[in-house]
Amino acid sequence: THQAYVTLCTNDAYVVGAMLLAHSLRRTGTRRQIVCMITEQVADFQKDRLQDVFDRVFTVEELDSQDPFHLGLLQRPELGVTLTKLHAWKLTHYDNCVFLDADTLVLTNIDELFERNCFAAAPDIGWPDCFNSGVFVFQPSSAKFEDLVRLLASTGSFDGGDQGLLNEYFADWATQGGEARLPFAYNMTANASYGYAPAFERFKADIKVIHFIGARKPWMGMPDP
Amino acid sequence: THQAYVTLCTNDAYVVGAMLLAHSLRRTGTRRQIVCMITEQVADFQKDRLQDVFDRVFTVEELDSQDPFHLGLLQRPELGVTLTKLHAWKLTHYDNCVFLDADTLVLTNIDELFERNCFAAAPDIGWPDCFNSGVFVFQPSSAKFEDLVRLLASTGSFDGGDQGLLNEYFADWATQGGEARLPFAYNMTANASYGYAPAFERFKADIKVIHFIGARKPWMGMPDP
Ligand SMILES: O=c1ccn([C@@H]2O[C@H](COP(=O)(O)OP(=O)(O)O)[C@@H](O)[C@H]2O)c(=O)[nH]1
Ligand SMILES: O=c1ccn([C@@H]2O[C@H](COP(=O)(O)OP(=O)(O)O)[C@@H](O)[C@H]2O)c(=O)[nH]1
Ligand SMILES: [Mn+2]
Ligand SMILES: [Mn+2]
Repeated sequence: THQAYVTLCTNDAYVVGAMLLAHSLRRTGTRRQIVCMITEQVADFQKDRLQDVFDRVFTVEELDSQDPFHLGLLQRPELGVTLTKLHAWKLTHYDNCVFLDADTLVLTNIDELFERNCFAAAPDIGWPDCFNSGVFVFQPSSAKFEDLVRLLASTGSFDGGDQGLLNEYFADWATQGGEARLPFAYNMTANASYGYAPAFERFKADIKVIHFIGARKPWMGMPDP
Repeated sequence: THQAYVTLCTNDAYVVGAMLLAHSLRRTGTRRQIVCMITEQVADFQKDRLQDVFDRVFTVEELDSQDPFHLGLLQRPELGVTLTKLHAWKLTHYDNCVFLDADTLVLTNIDELFERNCFAAAPDIGWPDCFNSGVFVFQPSSAKFEDLVRLLASTGSFDGGDQGLLNEYFADWATQGGEARLPFAYNMTANASYGYAPAFERFKADIKVIHFIGARKPWMGMPDP
C-alpha cells in the first residue's frame, strides 16, 4: 500500500514523543507504514532508537519561519521549526498520508482516515474556524510543497508556525464541511477536557487521538518548582 | 416581515445586557423586529426599560433543569434557567429568527443570517464539535418545542443548560456543514482572543458578534478585590 502515518522530530527533545506515538499506532494493529521525518540535529543514537520503531526515518532540511513577531503573539518562539512539517508533502512515494504531531497518542485504530481523499483536519479550540495542524490527512505532491513554500515567502504564516500557514493555504476549510472536516475525536487537544467538562464527559468514549498541545509535554517530566 | 431577533432575560441581572444588545442591533440599521423574552422574576420598572428599546417583550414561564450534577461539572449552577431559552421555539408568529444571548453585542449588520432556513450555529471553543448556543438561527415550531421538552425530560441536558440539550437535539450539526454552520465571526467568544492570539489578529476585522461568556459580565462591574 502507498499509504503512511507520518510524524516529525526535529531534535532530541521530541524523540520520546515520536516513539510513544509509533508504539501507540502499532497497538492499533494498523498495517500502514509508520514513518518519521527528522533533521540533522537529531543525534545518531536517537536516530537508531527511532529506526527500531518506525518503518522508515527520513532526514529532511530544517525550515524555519524566523518570524519573532508572530511567534511572540503565540508565546512559543520554538515553533518556527514546525514549518519543517511542510516536507511531508514531498513524500510522493505515498499517495495518501495521515500526519500526526509527535505529541499525539492514538487510542484506537484510525485507518478509516485513509478513505478521505482530500486535505482533512479537525477544529482548533483556540479559534474553531481554524483547523489544528497536529493531525491531518494529506496527499503528497511536489507542486503543493512548492506552493506552500512560495506562500510562506510571500504572505508568511500568521502564527509563525505551520498551523498559520496551512490555514492560510487551505482557507476554505471552515466553510467547506464534508470530507475535509475531521471530528474533534481525531484531535482531542487535552486541555479541552477542562474547557467544557460536560462535553468531555459526554463524548470521551469516542476519543481516538489525544493531542498534548502546549510547551510542556507529558514525557518532559514535571515543570521546575 | 415575520422575522425577529430574540433574546432572553430571566431576571434583573441580565436587563442591562439585553438593553445593550438591543441598542447594538438598532445601530446596525436592521428593520427586523427585536424582541425579548422575560419571566415574572423581572421587576416591573425593569420591564418598562426593556419595553423602551425592544419592539416586543414577552413573558414566558421559567424552565429549569434542576440538575446539580451536570451544572456542577460546568461550575455554573445558575445556568439551569437558560433552558427558558427553549420558549423561543413557541414564537410561532415569526417564521425565522435569530436568537442572541443577552451577553452578546452586535458590531455590524447581520440580517444576512435570515437567509438561512435551517437551525444554524457557530462552534464552541470548549469542545468545537459542539455549537455554542449563544447565537443561533432557528424556525419557531410548537412541535419542535414539544420535542425539546420531551428530550429534556427523557435524556436531560449533558451540561445542565440549554447548550447541552440543544447539542443533543441537533446532534448531526458537527458533521453536517453547509448552511447549518455559522462562521465563528458570528459568535466570537471574547476569551478566544487570548486562546489563539495570532488567529484573533488575523481575523479580528471580520468579527460581527462578540459574546461575553462566563460568570462575570462586562456590565456587572469589577470583580470583588
Ligand atoms: O522543537 C520542535 C518543535 C516541534 N516539533 C514537531 O512539530 C510538532 C508541532 O509542535 P508542538 O506539538 O510542540 O506544537 P503544539 O501542538 O503544542 O502547538 C511537534 O509535535 C513535533 O512533531 C519538533 O519536532 N521539534
Ligand atoms: O440568570 C440568568 C442566566 C442566563 N440568562 C439568559 O441566558 C443566556 C445564557 O446564559 P449566559 O450568557 O450567562 O451563559 P454563557 O454564555 O456565559 O455560557 C444569557 O445571555 C441570558 O440571555 C438569564 O436571562 N438569566
Ligand atoms: Mn502538537
Ligand atoms: Mn452567553
